Amino acid sequence: MTADADLVDALRLPAGPVDLASIDTNGAPGFAGGKEEGKATLYALGDTLSDLQERLFAEGKAGGNRSLLLVLQGMDTSGKGGTLRHTVGLMDPQGVRITSFKAPTPAELEQDFLWRIRKALPTAGYVGVFDRSHYEDVLIARVRQLAPLEEIERRYEAINAFEAELVEGGTTILKCMLHISADEQKARLLARLDDPSKHWKYNSGDVDERALWPAYQGAYQVAIERTNTDVAPWHVIPADKKWYRNLAIGHLLLDALETMDPQWPKADFDVAVEKRRLTEEDPLS
Amino acid sequence: MTADADLVDALRLPAGPVDLASIDTNGAPGFAGGKEEGKATLYALGDTLSDLQERLFAEGKAGGNRSLLLVLQGMDTSGKGGTLRHTVGLMDPQGVRITSFKAPTPAELEQDFLWRIRKALPTAGYVGVFDRSHYEDVLIARVRQLAPLEEIERRYEAINAFEAELVEGGTTILKCMLHISADEQKARLLARLDDPSKHWKYNSGDVDERALWPAYQGAYQVAIERTNTDVAPWHVIPADKKWYRNLAIGHLLLDALETMDPQWPKADFDVAVEKRRLTEEDPLS
Repeated sequence: MTADADLVDALRLPAGPVDLASIDTNGAPGFAGGKEEGKATLYALGDTLSDLQERLFAEGKAGGNRSLLLVLQGMDTSGKGGTLRHTVGLMDPQGVRITSFKAPTPAELEQDFLWRIRKALPTAGYVGVFDRSHYEDVLIARVRQLAPLEEIERRYEAINAFEAELVEGGTTILKCMLHISADEQKARLLARLDDPSKHWKYNSGDVDERALWPAYQGAYQVAIERTNTDVAPWHVIPADKKWYRNLAIGHLLLDALETMDPQWPKADFDVAVEKRRLTEEDPLS
Repeated sequence: MTADADLVDALRLPAGPVDLASIDTNGAPGFAGGKEEGKATLYALGDTLSDLQERLFAEGKAGGNRSLLLVLQGMDTSGKGGTLRHTVGLMDPQGVRITSFKAPTPAELEQDFLWRIRKALPTAGYVGVFDRSHYEDVLIARVRQLAPLEEIERRYEAINAFEAELVEGGTTILKCMLHISADEQKARLLARLDDPSKHWKYNSGDVDERALWPAYQGAYQVAIERTNTDVAPWHVIPADKKWYRNLAIGHLLLDALETMDPQWPKADFDVAVEKRRLTEEDPLS
């Protein structure tokens, strides 16, 4: 199974101004089927995704320098955790490194905002996943005025330079904004309140952030527009439908790995010699 | 689905001398079925395993201090990677942290052998998995005489003290030795040579280690005997049958989580108040 070119194309964001309100949060662009078909399709992607991931991992072990970085951003309840479980969970955990970024610690705040990000980058062969990321430093930081506006402005450029450097160094960057509606967020927050097994996910501070919804949408629009570069483009994923969100990111990961096209490394040993060492020369036989 | 008590009991290792040769590497202790049933059973464990893991994760977020640490040890080709993919892969990757320990770096060698281990311990709520571990420092270190014997002797005690400290601090430790026969290793190494997509896993140095098989079995026996404590017991997993190895570790993980019995944290907020904030008081409605 290969990546769905229609779906991947439908998620490409043209350069220029971004109008989130014009992107239907409940849509399923590029996919004609419904929920059951979507789930089955995602599951069917698993083997190819794992196979390509293993090739990338092998390439890394053999001295290659490439890696893949999936950046997940979105409002509370937009489904970053569900994406980790259902889509990232299709890959071999051995080759995946997930980092969940929280509010920076005092020690982190003393450093440049990219300092803690650099420490979490995937090494050669790995698929790194950022659950929130350096984009928080131009999102909540802008909305909550945690830094002066000129510093926020500087950060867009710093992010572009940083990401270009990563791409130059062999990292493919896949940036996804999980796009839900305010109504969907309300429904999900209320569902958490109704289910004691979900209370731990509920944070009353999320409602405070929710009150700033328009400001966040604005901050996302500016951030995406300013950092939607050729080398590290953004994807806005309609995420009211959880199954579509999972499927879309599955196809984007697959497409990224297909484009990287990792190959099994060539043997750095003589197969015949090694076979002999294991057969006629084997000291244990 | 709950952990299979027969299987878990069958893998308990009594205190006292360990005789690896007396444990059939091709056995399936505690499980009467065959390969297909074993695979289906493992798959069926996935939901309960994920549910308990999520409870542990939730507990950690809510201020709990508990975590689970799975230590995987075994000769080359014994299936540490396969266990990660097939068994650890059943859990939510969001709550799993895998560390693969390689030969120590010069910087690591300047520190006590537990220094790099401490840095990789699972934090509250997480399932940590060590692919190789501090046990290498009493295995290859003993066989290859990388440290004086009195230092190796000291390390057994240091490991016991270290693990007791972890258990005291809330970590459940599950130690598994993947037990294969020398013949099975030969077959697996030859299979890697026959398959170009597996060449990357082949290391001609593995054959040098293979020549020291009896010394390694001896080092494992001493290490297991000396560190098979009540608080952090060892399990020797017959691992010639890959499906049994995966199933056995699945049941052991499930059993460990069932014993921990993590509970959904209680709400630290007033549900009625929060519902009102999201309905009549919602600024976005």
